[in-house]
Formats: sequence, structure tokens, C-alpha cells
Amino acid sequence: MKARVHIMLKAGVLDPQGEAIRHALGTLGFEGVAGVRQGKVIEIEIAATDEDAAKAEVARMCEALLANTVIESYTVEIL
Amino acid sequence: MKARVHIMLKAGVLDPQGEAIRHALGTLGFEGVAGVRQGKVIEIEIAATDEDAAKAEVARMCEALLANTVIESYTVEIL
Repeated sequence: MKARVHIMLKAGVLDPQGEAIRHALGTLGFEGVAGVRQGKVIEIEIAATDEDAAKAEVARMCEALLANTVIESYTVEIL
Repeated sequence: MKARVHIMLKAGVLDPQGEAIRHALGTLGFEGVAGVRQGKVIEIEIAATDEDAAKAEVARMCEALLANTVIESYTVEIL
């Protein structure tokens, strides 16, 4: 079973990578870009067969390792 | 309008970050993790009002700046 995790900085946390992209897009002539946020996506192939169990397992991985929950939020989806 | 871009390394391209995560999950006691791939997710707030036009514009951003299309593939979705 494949799970996809999105990890984004929480609203209000400064995102210098996103700001750098926004600025670079402006320099390249792309107009109308109001804001850019960059995050991580992690795809995990796990052995679990039950969807709810897989989701719970991946959420535990996020809490333990993948996300810094002080400044980042995560969402888990099963593909 | 908000667009979300996923940028992942193409299949066959070595992903040391993903491997590091897989190894760390094993060390933490998570079993049954067969594979991990890490990529980037970029959320872009753009002024376009037409969905198809927005998608095309963001695809151009990917080609010009966001993705290294030699080793990375991208997908664009409008939220």
C-alpha cells in the first residue's frame, strides 16, 4: 500500500524557500504570483493491507520523524 | 487561484533522502516499509481565473524554474 504525506510549514511561519521562488518567478517574467509556499512530499510503500491501519501508522511516522510539528503540519493520504 | 505542484525524482534516479528516511524509520522500529521517495510540493497563489490557463502557466513555471526535467517529473493540480 502506498501512502503520500504532505508536510508544509504552518501558516504564519516564515518560508524563505517559498519567498525565493516567488521572487525568481517575478524575475523570469511570470506575473500575478501572489504567494508561494514550499513543502515536502514523501511517498511511503508500506506492508499494511488495512487502509485505516496504514494511515495511523504513517501518522505515527510523521510525529516521530518526518514532521517537526512545532512549525510544520502534515496530511496523510492513501493512494 | 491556488495551484499545487508535485516534483518527484523520476523512477530509476537514486533518491538518497528517501533512502535515509527509510533507514531511519527502520531504526525507530517501523517495520514493513518497503520504499520511500521524497519530493517537493509547491503551492502557488496565482491571479489567473481560468483553470486551464492557470495550469498551463504553472507548467511553464515548472519547465523554466521549479523542476529539473532531466531527473525530475512534475504534476500540476488546481485546488
